[in-house]
Amino acid sequence: MNFPSKLIENAVNEMSKLPGIGKKTALRLVLHLLKREEEATLTLAESLTQMRTQIQYCRQCHNIADTETCAICASRSRDRSVVCVVEDTRDVLAIENTAQYKGLYHVLGGIISPLEGVGPADLHIDSLLRRLPESTIQEVILALSPTMEGDTTAFYLTKKLKPFNLKISTIARGIPVGGELEYADEISLGRSILSRTAYDV
Amino acid sequence: MNFPSKLIENAVNEMSKLPGIGKKTALRLVLHLLKREEEATLTLAESLTQMRTQIQYCRQCHNIADTETCAICASRSRDRSVVCVVEDTRDVLAIENTAQYKGLYHVLGGIISPLEGVGPADLHIDSLLRRLPESTIQEVILALSPTMEGDTTAFYLTKKLKPFNLKISTIARGIPVGGELEYADEISLGRSILSRTAYDV
Repeated sequence: MNFPSKLIENAVNEMSKLPGIGKKTALRLVLHLLKREEEATLTLAESLTQMRTQIQYCRQCHNIADTETCAICASRSRDRSVVCVVEDTRDVLAIENTAQYKGLYHVLGGIISPLEGVGPADLHIDSLLRRLPESTIQEVILALSPTMEGDTTAFYLTKKLKPFNLKISTIARGIPVGGELEYADEISLGRSILSRTAYDV
Repeated sequence: MNFPSKLIENAVNEMSKLPGIGKKTALRLVLHLLKREEEATLTLAESLTQMRTQIQYCRQCHNIADTETCAICASRSRDRSVVCVVEDTRDVLAIENTAQYKGLYHVLGGIISPLEGVGPADLHIDSLLRRLPESTIQEVILALSPTMEGDTTAFYLTKKLKPFNLKISTIARGIPVGGELEYADEISLGRSILSRTAYDV
């Protein structure tokens, strides 16, 4: 594309670096900003800058926070006997939205992936292990993606967690609620049979 | 969604004001920015701010420009006998990408739309009429969308342009190249027959 202006070209190039946004979409967004009042663009730019420069991470669980300790770690109403280990902040949000979990979290900040050069030392694993001895934690839930990287990370963590004599669990794999059996993939269906739960009669 | 941080919430809210970007996508983009180095976000914010505050519009054709006169109006290689009237900058880019047009442009900055409260006075129509008398322009091409608003604008323009005794034309409507007849809508197919062009044998 031949842009009529270097300013537009720069803005489009920067916008199209975002995931899922190509040059055409970026141009549409930039021209949209040009049509709206100047204030709108300045507020957007300012909110991004502030977010990136002022963001903090919870000292304890490494979740995103505005303060040294995040709202969940600081809350008195959370169950301090269980910690849920997740890959990133998005997983915390997803689990919080279910309103089914009242324990604490630990955000790894990634997942072991040799292909992308991410090893155990790049994740917040040490701080998890340091967190356990003097705490009230009795159970660690591994809520990682059911991918090869997720399973590798879970395997590594279980080995590291073993000496602490805690209950270690993983979230259930199975058929999604509302899913039909005949359309489920074999692995999920197989796992759902292996991990069947007893009816409370 | 319950955001763990006010900063994230602000950034997500601002991002999701962009067309086609919902809360979930905005969150994905914001978390992506958080994972990348700080410099990336600052460059993005800076490019948007600069674009919005420093952008200029060509004095003659109202196209986006970095200077008082845009590159097309300033170019010596363009055909100054013909001007193509379009709705906005995106149309200029689209036509330029075809490499089939070597004339000048005039960007209206919108289209007559009573429903959205856009009247002729809100568009750069006066400046088009002022541009014609002392110029070399002999033909005006109306390249507006084939919608009711586009047709209304074209009708208004033809009435205003009539006293200047210029050739007025509109871009051809018809079957897209590569389109199959049986799948074409009746109006396009009908217009393609009415506006049939002679074979040069």
